[in-house]
Amino acid sequence: MCSSHDNTIPAASSTVNDSAEAPLAVDPSLIQDLVFANHILFDQGVLDAFGHVSMRHPDDANRFLLCRNMAPAQATVQDIVQFQLDGTPIDAAGRPVYLERFIHGELYKARPDVMAVVHSHSPSVVPFSVVKEAPLRPLCHMAGFIGAGAPVFEIRDVVGDGSSLLVTDNRLGAALAALLAGSSVVLMRGHGSTVVADTLKKAVYRAVYTEINARAQLQASQLGAITFLSPAEAQATTATIETQVGRAWDLWKKKAEHTAGYLR
Amino acid sequence: MCSSHDNTIPAASSTVNDSAEAPLAVDPSLIQDLVFANHILFDQGVLDAFGHVSMRHPDDANRFLLCRNMAPAQATVQDIVQFQLDGTPIDAAGRPVYLERFIHGELYKARPDVMAVVHSHSPSVVPFSVVKEAPLRPLCHMAGFIGAGAPVFEIRDVVGDGSSLLVTDNRLGAALAALLAGSSVVLMRGHGSTVVADTLKKAVYRAVYTEINARAQLQASQLGAITFLSPAEAQATTATIETQVGRAWDLWKKKAEHTAGYLR
Amino acid sequence: MCSSHDNTIPAASSTVNDSAEAPLAVDPSLIQDLVFANHILFDQGVLDAFGHVSMRHPDDANRFLLCRNMAPAQATVQDIVQFQLDGTPIDAAGRPVYLERFIHGELYKARPDVMAVVHSHSPSVVPFSVVKEAPLRPLCHMAGFIGAGAPVFEIRDVVGDGSSLLVTDNRLGAALAALLAGSSVVLMRGHGSTVVADTLKKAVYRAVYTEINARAQLQASQLGAITFLSPAEAQATTATIETQVGRAWDLWKKKAEHTAGYLR
Amino acid sequence: MCSSHDNTIPAASSTVNDSAEAPLAVDPSLIQDLVFANHILFDQGVLDAFGHVSMRHPDDANRFLLCRNMAPAQATVQDIVQFQLDGTPIDAAGRPVYLERFIHGELYKARPDVMAVVHSHSPSVVPFSVVKEAPLRPLCHMAGFIGAGAPVFEIRDVVGDGSSLLVTDNRLGAALAALLAGSSVVLMRGHGSTVVADTLKKAVYRAVYTEINARAQLQASQLGAITFLSPAEAQATTATIETQVGRAWDLWKKKAEHTAGYLR
Repeated sequence: MCSSHDNTIPAASSTVNDSAEAPLAVDPSLIQDLVFANHILFDQGVLDAFGHVSMRHPDDANRFLLCRNMAPAQATVQDIVQFQLDGTPIDAAGRPVYLERFIHGELYKARPDVMAVVHSHSPSVVPFSVVKEAPLRPLCHMAGFIGAGAPVFEIRDVVGDGSSLLVTDNRLGAALAALLAGSSVVLMRGHGSTVVADTLKKAVYRAVYTEINARAQLQASQLGAITFLSPAEAQATTATIETQVGRAWDLWKKKAEHTAGYLR
Repeated sequence: MCSSHDNTIPAASSTVNDSAEAPLAVDPSLIQDLVFANHILFDQGVLDAFGHVSMRHPDDANRFLLCRNMAPAQATVQDIVQFQLDGTPIDAAGRPVYLERFIHGELYKARPDVMAVVHSHSPSVVPFSVVKEAPLRPLCHMAGFIGAGAPVFEIRDVVGDGSSLLVTDNRLGAALAALLAGSSVVLMRGHGSTVVADTLKKAVYRAVYTEINARAQLQASQLGAITFLSPAEAQATTATIETQVGRAWDLWKKKAEHTAGYLR
Repeated sequence: MCSSHDNTIPAASSTVNDSAEAPLAVDPSLIQDLVFANHILFDQGVLDAFGHVSMRHPDDANRFLLCRNMAPAQATVQDIVQFQLDGTPIDAAGRPVYLERFIHGELYKARPDVMAVVHSHSPSVVPFSVVKEAPLRPLCHMAGFIGAGAPVFEIRDVVGDGSSLLVTDNRLGAALAALLAGSSVVLMRGHGSTVVADTLKKAVYRAVYTEINARAQLQASQLGAITFLSPAEAQATTATIETQVGRAWDLWKKKAEHTAGYLR
Repeated sequence: MCSSHDNTIPAASSTVNDSAEAPLAVDPSLIQDLVFANHILFDQGVLDAFGHVSMRHPDDANRFLLCRNMAPAQATVQDIVQFQLDGTPIDAAGRPVYLERFIHGELYKARPDVMAVVHSHSPSVVPFSVVKEAPLRPLCHMAGFIGAGAPVFEIRDVVGDGSSLLVTDNRLGAALAALLAGSSVVLMRGHGSTVVADTLKKAVYRAVYTEINARAQLQASQLGAITFLSPAEAQATTATIETQVGRAWDLWKKKAEHTAGYLR
């Protein structure tokens, strides 16, 4: 535990100066997919007015794309901003950015295989973040990616008591990335979770099924001792099911665009 | 306990005479925001056909604005009435008013810092109002405003057994305000809760997240011992997160107006 | 227990001959209200494709009005049929009628004060019907009408094992009415519940809040010992709150007609 | 347990060669009903982007009809494919097919009385699949078809540890069918459930009420010891209630087609 960290409140709504770098153009259909991901995660109940989803820049591994500071359900292609991995915006042009963009940047730094990141407060996952004796583990074949169980990030271990619980700088982002290590899901105590994958569609899929698995685990834990997936099953189910994520994406996109239609 | 209180049934649907004072004009956009607050709190599941939200008069600290007696989801700007802090309407003009307007008036009297009040029966909060050993406490960073835990108002302590559980006069309103003291949330046994804040948008935000925190606490309590926010974390999270309530307000307003469109 | 009862399967979808009596005209706005009640109870999650709501004939205490055998959400004024209290239809004109119309007729016979009846499988109530040690009791001021707790009808006590659990004749309806006695709500083991009131709007209100109270009781029972309403509070809350049911009716009707619009 | 099984990952999205047989025309209204069944099961929350529903070919007991590999909510009549009971498509014409079509084929082989099959991950059922001491049993009259309780298929008993949990070949399908035996519902550990009936509408009805019964059982189990349906009651309720499934089908179809309208 370290009490020397500066727990002052970050200037949340102030703008951050853009870096001197020039933005690097991205295929518009990929930007559009990131917007769809924002809408889908809201429509599926993973994000509400808070939380965010990013993708690594397809042509520059040292950048990522993330919405400006706003409700994901209302994002448009004009709202997607390029960032350096240290969280400095490249083309925010004075628009406020998310306080917790450091989650994304540090995960991309630590995990070259990761191409997309979802950070959410998805409701059934939060309870697992605050009960030490109840780790989130995969109990159904759709959630094998949870593997041996999701580690829980205790921010007090890094900055001591009295923080905002938010990952508001690179040091906290790096600590989170270190705990995630090779896993796909990390919980954050009293806060939420972060999910990673090697494609955007897979990250969206995993964020949705992290919530579904958590709901099932909450219910099953009331019935008795749970048979979780074995390590070998977690691996085999992930390999098989994740060939099918396009099926979910196509449906969720249609449904989400219907919802987004009246949120614009 | 006091059995001398008059537990007769208040004339709920009869009208109350307006005071002799003249109404004091309010910026129409503020009235419109109060109407949006009514719609949002319904759409987010905090209010149903019952419950209410008020704001203090922006130009006269001795008045507040509250909808006439009707379902909040159907409120329009024409339905907003000015009241004196003792609950006397100023421009009801014969329209029935809420039985429990005394909650609002007495809270504005006791707490000069409070600018908005939400009283609701939000469903996940009610269970915490009837189980003595289970205080509602903040377990996630979005609900730091719950602070050290919400006190529970036991109406029997004021008027003895046999009441309607409603806060139907100034004496009950003052007792509720005394229990709330400096907190932001007070539960009411077998009834619901009341939430206060220094802006309307913040009061709406807090009412929504009181419900979300309650739901998470219900679930977490089935998993094991809960790590709640520490006092210092409750304070820091509140200070940080509540700079972001506009993000939620903008989304919720869009969503609520879609719903309100078919409820008129 | 009595094993002499005839547990043969009633001819559910066959028609029943009308009585020789002539139908007695009813104010069309009352018929329309009964249709709205059908739609509201579906939209509020009390009825699904099953369950029914009736009202006593306003001009003949020996008759009641009930929809023909169909999903309540799709009912129109043309679908409302008059019945004698013994369950014989008067103007069904060959259209199939509900198997369980005997619930309604026998309750109107036993309780002259009852003017409307809702029979449902509302989901949070069913668990209380199958757990002997967990009576449904009022824990919030909106549900004072549950009074000292809802009795549970065990059909095995009347016809022994092996029944369809349905109230398919007058004998079963009379046994249910005898158990209800002076209460407002009776549960039916492994089946659902029946709610009565002295007006249609109040019966609808009570059916909705029986479900809401059950949901809250399920949750509160996981937190610890519950403080229920005292008998005096149950009485006082009922008297006060039920002056306000029009507020809920007006909102629910608007919402239900929106839903009904795409179910026709 | 058998560890000799080949746990390699099936080529999920690759196409399968059609058999040399010619398709046998089916009454278009039956195909349309199968499409409605797909939409209803999504709209009722039984299927999400995954799971499937099939019917036996009305004119050839050795064939069945099942959607191509896609989200059921988006199915159209053009997406229905004929299969041989061994899972070989007849007119897929290069379109990918479901990995788990073997569930359907083997159940039709083993159970000549079965005319329709629903395989789902319906959310409240999954918890019962992973807790050995908590069998799913019928507690309400709408779910008598669950009979003496649903057996749980443990795939490890067939292929050992390390499988994808999916029923991806005829051997696994046959093992599942053997466990189902004469029942109507079989759970699959860490996966979901499969429901059968002698008509399509009844299979849809049963899949919906398997979920509803599971939800009620989860809740009731928190309240105390449950009185389940006796064997005689399970039989009598099934015989009576299932004469009424058309009522639910008609409502669910209307509701589902409204939803399907914005998913196309």
